[in-house]
Amino acid sequence: MLLSGGTGGAKLARGLLDVCEQLTVVANTGDDVEIHGVHVSPDPDLVTYWLADEIDGQGWGLRGDTSSVMDALRAAGRPAWFHLGDRDLAMCLVRTAELRAGRRLTDAHAAVVDAMDVPARVLPMADEPVTTHVKHGGRLWPFQEYMIVAGAEPPVEGVELHGVERARPTEDVLAALADASLIVIGPSNPVISIGPILALPGMREAVAGAPAPVVAVSPFVGGRSVKGPSEHFCEWAGVALSAEGIARVYEDMLDGVVADEPVERVPCLLTDTLMDSAERRQQVAREVVEFGETALRSR
Amino acid sequence: MLLSGGTGGAKLARGLLDVCEQLTVVANTGDDVEIHGVHVSPDPDLVTYWLADEIDGQGWGLRGDTSSVMDALRAAGRPAWFHLGDRDLAMCLVRTAELRAGRRLTDAHAAVVDAMDVPARVLPMADEPVTTHVKHGGRLWPFQEYMIVAGAEPPVEGVELHGVERARPTEDVLAALADASLIVIGPSNPVISIGPILALPGMREAVAGAPAPVVAVSPFVGGRSVKGPSEHFCEWAGVALSAEGIARVYEDMLDGVVADEPVERVPCLLTDTLMDSAERRQQVAREVVEFGETALRSR
Repeated sequence: MLLSGGTGGAKLARGLLDVCEQLTVVANTGDDVEIHGVHVSPDPDLVTYWLADEIDGQGWGLRGDTSSVMDALRAAGRPAWFHLGDRDLAMCLVRTAELRAGRRLTDAHAAVVDAMDVPARVLPMADEPVTTHVKHGGRLWPFQEYMIVAGAEPPVEGVELHGVERARPTEDVLAALADASLIVIGPSNPVISIGPILALPGMREAVAGAPAPVVAVSPFVGGRSVKGPSEHFCEWAGVALSAEGIARVYEDMLDGVVADEPVERVPCLLTDTLMDSAERRQQVAREVVEFGETALRSR
Repeated sequence: MLLSGGTGGAKLARGLLDVCEQLTVVANTGDDVEIHGVHVSPDPDLVTYWLADEIDGQGWGLRGDTSSVMDALRAAGRPAWFHLGDRDLAMCLVRTAELRAGRRLTDAHAAVVDAMDVPARVLPMADEPVTTHVKHGGRLWPFQEYMIVAGAEPPVEGVELHGVERARPTEDVLAALADASLIVIGPSNPVISIGPILALPGMREAVAGAPAPVVAVSPFVGGRSVKGPSEHFCEWAGVALSAEGIARVYEDMLDGVVADEPVERVPCLLTDTLMDSAERRQQVAREVVEFGETALRSR
């Protein structure tokens, strides 16, 4: 199973789908946002769209999507800072309809996974709302607004996870952890993507206590984040932009790290972690799985 | 002001917009339905689209609309019995966003009217949910499902207005009644379109007690309903498909009837009430307003 944000983790998920018999992804819901009354789950959706081989080339949304509804909303003078293509919106309506019918976010997103015909499970980290907020310019921004409206400008002055103390990892997440043969912490930002997942009460303990080995894949390639703006969050949190930084932030849970630079004190697989093609995503996934098996034998 | 359902009444609304200085339409919300988690208000929307000169030639939806979102939902195997074009959906999202933000249906629909740039007020009859159900084939159908899924097949075995006893005409509706110089009961079905409006506790009394004259425009042309299926409702309710039937059903409120056949006991303006062109809609509207002024003088 894989813990994931929306981009690096989602690419690894796509690779893992090719090399694993079964795949469960636990995705961050701290970025979830209501747009025009519709429940949007950016990270679970990006994972799902990657798994469906339908992600758009720009890195979000669905390939070849149209934007009739957003164009109409924009023409009507409604807020248009968050773009949703028509088919992307349709998937969000699948989720919204299930939620309005009283179903859990877990089941609502399962309907999206089903609608996209994805042969894997994508689990929201929690059914309760957790909303990541970013302090910047003396103001507290909901995460997507900070990223899009405020242009993800530095400095990050704080990160707050509203609702996290009342949320819990779902039974589905806990069962997946207990049943997993390998737990991979994906190459997503440790502060804003993996951070909210691990901040759920009991989650770090559940990962550390699971029988499977835990391997983290560093999101840093050549000492940089592949997606730039997420570096500011690491700076704020005091996480070094390195495999060593990753090893330290997940220290209490780790059996190994996969990175393009060595780390001390934790078993490390040195490899090229850039996943810019289907072949690279498969290759990294295969190496991660093999490394996990080694980690298990060395316990 | 005009009480209206979605078709005949909406056409008259369009005519009245040309001949009146101010127009307030009170629309039936008994047909409201949640589709894919989105709040759809068929009658208020049809009135609004007519007023905006954007109604599609088929009599519902927006002219030239696309259907990307519905196509995606259909392809994903989601229920597709209720069609919403992309721009129509955008207007419903305007409403839904306002409702989720805690606003009243009245204000949420006002945002739609504003988005469509309509220079009139379109007031939902109530802010509380009232849902028209139709008994047919021994089953109770929500109104839109009866019309679309069950094909509006006769016989109608009953009509129930769920929630009506807990709903009230809004302050906006009551104020509009008190301020109106003329109250027109539009040529919409007396049972399923005007019926729910008048079934709100206190509404009949508010219409009857308003200072303005009350004129009903018969929905029957040549002894038939212009839109066929609505006749079954009149048969069930024992309302004759005639100006006389209309005069009887609104008896306690009426100062006059506009119809293409004479009635007894109530002042009547005999005219061609078919509104199949902009000229005819304007002409009928002008006659209704002039007849209303006569009715006022004869009081």
